[in-house]
Amino acid sequence: MDKLENNFKRLLLEISFDGRSYGGWQIQPDNPTVQKLVQDTLAKLYSGQDIKLTGSSRTDAGVHAAGFAASFAVPARPYILPDKLKKALNGLLPDSIAVRTVKEVPADFHARFDTAGKAYTYVINLGDKNPFSTHYSWRPHRKLDIERMREAAPHLIGTHDFSSFVVNRDEIDEAVRTIYNIDFQVFGQYLCITFTGDGFLYKMIRCLAGALEAVGAGKISGAELKTILEHKDRRKAPDTAPPYGLFLVKVFYDEQEMADFKLENIRSYRNVPC
Amino acid sequence: MDKLENNFKRLLLEISFDGRSYGGWQIQPDNPTVQKLVQDTLAKLYSGQDIKLTGSSRTDAGVHAAGFAASFAVPARPYILPDKLKKALNGLLPDSIAVRTVKEVPADFHARFDTAGKAYTYVINLGDKNPFSTHYSWRPHRKLDIERMREAAPHLIGTHDFSSFVVNRDEIDEAVRTIYNIDFQVFGQYLCITFTGDGFLYKMIRCLAGALEAVGAGKISGAELKTILEHKDRRKAPDTAPPYGLFLVKVFYDEQEMADFKLENIRSYRNVPC
Repeated sequence: MDKLENNFKRLLLEISFDGRSYGGWQIQPDNPTVQKLVQDTLAKLYSGQDIKLTGSSRTDAGVHAAGFAASFAVPARPYILPDKLKKALNGLLPDSIAVRTVKEVPADFHARFDTAGKAYTYVINLGDKNPFSTHYSWRPHRKLDIERMREAAPHLIGTHDFSSFVVNRDEIDEAVRTIYNIDFQVFGQYLCITFTGDGFLYKMIRCLAGALEAVGAGKISGAELKTILEHKDRRKAPDTAPPYGLFLVKVFYDEQEMADFKLENIRSYRNVPC
Repeated sequence: MDKLENNFKRLLLEISFDGRSYGGWQIQPDNPTVQKLVQDTLAKLYSGQDIKLTGSSRTDAGVHAAGFAASFAVPARPYILPDKLKKALNGLLPDSIAVRTVKEVPADFHARFDTAGKAYTYVINLGDKNPFSTHYSWRPHRKLDIERMREAAPHLIGTHDFSSFVVNRDEIDEAVRTIYNIDFQVFGQYLCITFTGDGFLYKMIRCLAGALEAVGAGKISGAELKTILEHKDRRKAPDTAPPYGLFLVKVFYDEQEMADFKLENIRSYRNVPC
């Protein structure tokens, strides 16, 4: 730690990416991933040094991000100023990846373990086919009653075992997570459901979005949603919603920032097409 | 005409498309075009009949459309109801093309000759790199003074010979056109410049957008813009802006509809990412 503090700097990146072209964040063989591209670009900028990015989350293939977070350590000298680094990264990275902010963080900062929470938005197109949003929203082809969805959502808020809403449950020890809030907003023909929580399991938001859609379509009731949660069995729950409607909008490292969060503020960056 | 009135119906389509994948509207060899795809799909729906679409304009390769207009004639029987036709077309067409409306028009209606005017919006990203808008806006990499642009724009309004703002001038007889209005709106980090006029020449809006950007960047003054217009010589004018910032937003067949037009109304369809 002493050595790190003296000779290294730790930097935190906020990254936007269009998930269409990538097999998610995490490096994997035979698939382009965001981590791989950003790491390789950093290595070029830091004269071939081997740089390891620590991501805030994994994010599945096809999922988009307005504000993914990742940190890395680099030697304190020569030092590239955060603004210069941002500019250089954006110049070298493809169109589908943008670094929004670069800031110095304490040497012992951890991009995954230090999170206060995360906000994800699932976008549903309630209207007609639109060539500019096909890859950024799910259009379920059945009429949804938003009031029904809004009334059922509180059953999911709080600390629960979310085994009914996770894919590959057997690969994890623990399915208990806390959802702080589920917020519904309609912008034009788009319904944005924003989930804020301490962390989310593999495909959990897509499972929850699929279940809420089934409530909206009148396939299950709010009471049935509660029963499905209590069953702790994925087979009891409705289908998983597709990845292209999902955006990781913000990773919080500060409780107050999370409390003040409004989707409106993210929309002003126009990184969420709703 | 009598024969047409008795045995044929004429239908008008309003079409949205993402220009990224296409060589523009008009059929050409070796390049996928929107006209080709929509015509082929119509032929399938009308049992292999040879259907010819008449488009409102040509639109260059890479340019987007929120409301392109095209009409065609079909035998009166069997008749496919407009709403059914819209649904069938949208189901068969790729994600990048959507039919927004289908309506019956008089037998002698002409999609090009009957236009009252057209509105195009050129989108400029004034802010940071954004993976969700790279293909739908131009990011000029220099600081723009919007007030300077707004003050210079009226030099272009009215009836003028636009020879300085057209590509391939020698291929057309006549470069006189009328611009009714040039409107500037800022949404978040995007500047939307909306041009309304009786018709536009090949790449004319992209030439005008390039010239207004040069004014905003302080490279030419409003007075110089006026002089360039008077020169009637493309070589005197600034560079052409790229196609991916341009949207054909609306084709008007009614003077009143054009007078009432507001970009806000088009944005509510979320077909213009600004």
